[in-house]
Amino acid sequence: MNLKDTKLVCTRCKKEYSAEQPIVRCAACGDTLEVPLLRKGRIIDGHRMNQTIFERYQEFFPYFDVDSSLSMGEGFTPLIDMPRLADEVGVRKLYIKNESVNPTWSFKDRGSLAGIMRAIQLGYRCVGTLSSGNMAISVAAYGRRANLKTIILVNTHIDEEKLNPIAIYDPILIKVEGDYAALYDESLRIGQEQGIYFINSDEPFRIEGYRTLAFEVCEQTYFDVPDLVVVPTSAGGHFRGILKGFLDFKNSGLIDRIPTMVCAQTSGCATINNAYERGLNEIERTPHPNTIAHCIENAFPPSGNEVLRAIRKYGGICVSVSDEKILDAQRRLSRAGLFVQPGSAAPLAAIQKMHEDGMLTGNERVVCVATSSGLKYTSILARHHLTYHETKLEDLSGYIANLR
Amino acid sequence: MNLKDTKLVCTRCKKEYSAEQPIVRCAACGDTLEVPLLRKGRIIDGHRMNQTIFERYQEFFPYFDVDSSLSMGEGFTPLIDMPRLADEVGVRKLYIKNESVNPTWSFKDRGSLAGIMRAIQLGYRCVGTLSSGNMAISVAAYGRRANLKTIILVNTHIDEEKLNPIAIYDPILIKVEGDYAALYDESLRIGQEQGIYFINSDEPFRIEGYRTLAFEVCEQTYFDVPDLVVVPTSAGGHFRGILKGFLDFKNSGLIDRIPTMVCAQTSGCATINNAYERGLNEIERTPHPNTIAHCIENAFPPSGNEVLRAIRKYGGICVSVSDEKILDAQRRLSRAGLFVQPGSAAPLAAIQKMHEDGMLTGNERVVCVATSSGLKYTSILARHHLTYHETKLEDLSGYIANLR
Repeated sequence: MNLKDTKLVCTRCKKEYSAEQPIVRCAACGDTLEVPLLRKGRIIDGHRMNQTIFERYQEFFPYFDVDSSLSMGEGFTPLIDMPRLADEVGVRKLYIKNESVNPTWSFKDRGSLAGIMRAIQLGYRCVGTLSSGNMAISVAAYGRRANLKTIILVNTHIDEEKLNPIAIYDPILIKVEGDYAALYDESLRIGQEQGIYFINSDEPFRIEGYRTLAFEVCEQTYFDVPDLVVVPTSAGGHFRGILKGFLDFKNSGLIDRIPTMVCAQTSGCATINNAYERGLNEIERTPHPNTIAHCIENAFPPSGNEVLRAIRKYGGICVSVSDEKILDAQRRLSRAGLFVQPGSAAPLAAIQKMHEDGMLTGNERVVCVATSSGLKYTSILARHHLTYHETKLEDLSGYIANLR
Repeated sequence: MNLKDTKLVCTRCKKEYSAEQPIVRCAACGDTLEVPLLRKGRIIDGHRMNQTIFERYQEFFPYFDVDSSLSMGEGFTPLIDMPRLADEVGVRKLYIKNESVNPTWSFKDRGSLAGIMRAIQLGYRCVGTLSSGNMAISVAAYGRRANLKTIILVNTHIDEEKLNPIAIYDPILIKVEGDYAALYDESLRIGQEQGIYFINSDEPFRIEGYRTLAFEVCEQTYFDVPDLVVVPTSAGGHFRGILKGFLDFKNSGLIDRIPTMVCAQTSGCATINNAYERGLNEIERTPHPNTIAHCIENAFPPSGNEVLRAIRKYGGICVSVSDEKILDAQRRLSRAGLFVQPGSAAPLAAIQKMHEDGMLTGNERVVCVATSSGLKYTSILARHHLTYHETKLEDLSGYIANLR
């Protein structure tokens, strides 16, 4: 099986395409495409430290000639037990799936490499993405590693401090003035026109790559999957990929149920959650997004409608949390040892809210996905009003004695 | 076997102490202590993703009751094949051991947790460290995770931008005005006096933790160890730990030789390398350190003398490189996919220098240790004069066509 024999199916109208076509949105209805669910696959055990996720789960990537030379060891991230936090939010077990230890310190790497594998198999020599943060860094890194010309489009609203950590990978980095949703459409059009493969948030093989997080959670819980998996949700591709991973493992008989997926959004930009609560069939653009959690600030998410459909089909839960609760969760995670970016703290805040709203029995096993490192956005730390002490060497002993 | 039955031996005068004493420097001669080499140990294979380094290598930590509840999945970092870089510097194989994917994004975590395990077994309720960067973050994270009072001492010269990423973990953070080497001594004195266990750079169990990097390299190279292992060297503890790891594996019959260790320093603060080249028996304080690679800027490294002795005993190599060469290596690593902090680029610059100086045959297999993420020190990126483009959405298509 290869890309030629693989179908892409529209998530809404079910129109089918060959994956050999460099297409990511349905030509008929405009919605996002996906690779159909797999019927069976096995885990291939290999070398403890040299095996890549694409080798271990290769039966779940039947359409790729897996080329591990491009890998930098993405995935295989720890599932960290957080007993103190579990007590605080009143659940039986609370784990953090720490995606900040990927090669560019976010979950994006799993998907970026999968997308690049498709691009290479389709014969592209140039890739691109549209992002203001994690995805820009990730595609810049893997694009250059694969020796492809790499075009990174960012919005003019991007913080200056975020530009250099993209630029150091030496992509063609372009700040574009204009509407972000329109820029998404335009990037795909330019890609078709000029032979650039844009691996944006809902590129179907990017989403295939994200499934590996779910595969790992199954293995890490010894195939007794958690009750809740909480995902900070912005464009929606990550949520879709994780859900699809659990579904592929269930289809393959490796697990007997899927977890309840929780879509954690920020109240200042809860595009999907608002549509769900209002009973809409389609998302509506959030007119004035306003949140400190920029990594989950997407006013018109490309996978929004499919996430909405999936939450209804599989019984997911939508929880929106305020910036203050996100900052509080960021502090609490740090005190448990993990410093994550604000959006990555939204799942803990969401579980806290479910606890306060009486939505939990107290017997749950919960996985919160921490998508990226806190180092990606340190200027937010000013909001925490952190303090330090100052003294002279000769006074230090007495100073410490007084503090304790 | 436990701490009570474990000896600590002075690296210089060979005086012995019980590891149950909270001691890190020799009371007789003042030099640094170490756990003696192990005679044998095996690797214990376990769960692909849930096993910790302390479980896999537990026979090499016979003095610990391993408590994996404190682990956040430190170690098991990728060894990344860099074929383009290997061609550029004229070696057969060049690998990067990417320590930036540890829980606080540096190699320090392997040692911090080992040091904290000792502190807990000795009954301490308070730990500390003296650091201006990676070690401060690491001890702050693991100390708080272990629910210990955690005191972090930094120098007044620390960049303001580096304070908040330490403070978010909520330690007692103290900026101390005074000589850094004197502060090292004073921290140990205050620790003894006030019952604080300082896990500084040469704490013997921190160094025991660093051995796991070498253990992993052995496994990742299928026990056919590389010819050269290049370590960015500052305080010297990391170099010692990696070397000791190879020695413990050789003693245990798991490998039949150890690699040649290369001590990579920056020309602006080459304290150990200068002493080596001048044939001195002891390091001399670097009077005016001057480098952009602050993470390897230690004017009077606590393990300096022992590294000097080890290089002579085991046939190591000293290579010092300029800031310009370090920045160049940082760019080249990024273009191969990995953005590391400046000090972490020193090994690639060192191999480049060895190549230019005719010190390589071209047949070498080389491991360069990348100690920490580039995100730890993004202000240095201004030195790279990185550029980006700017345009409007309506002009984007033509703009990209012109660029390509």
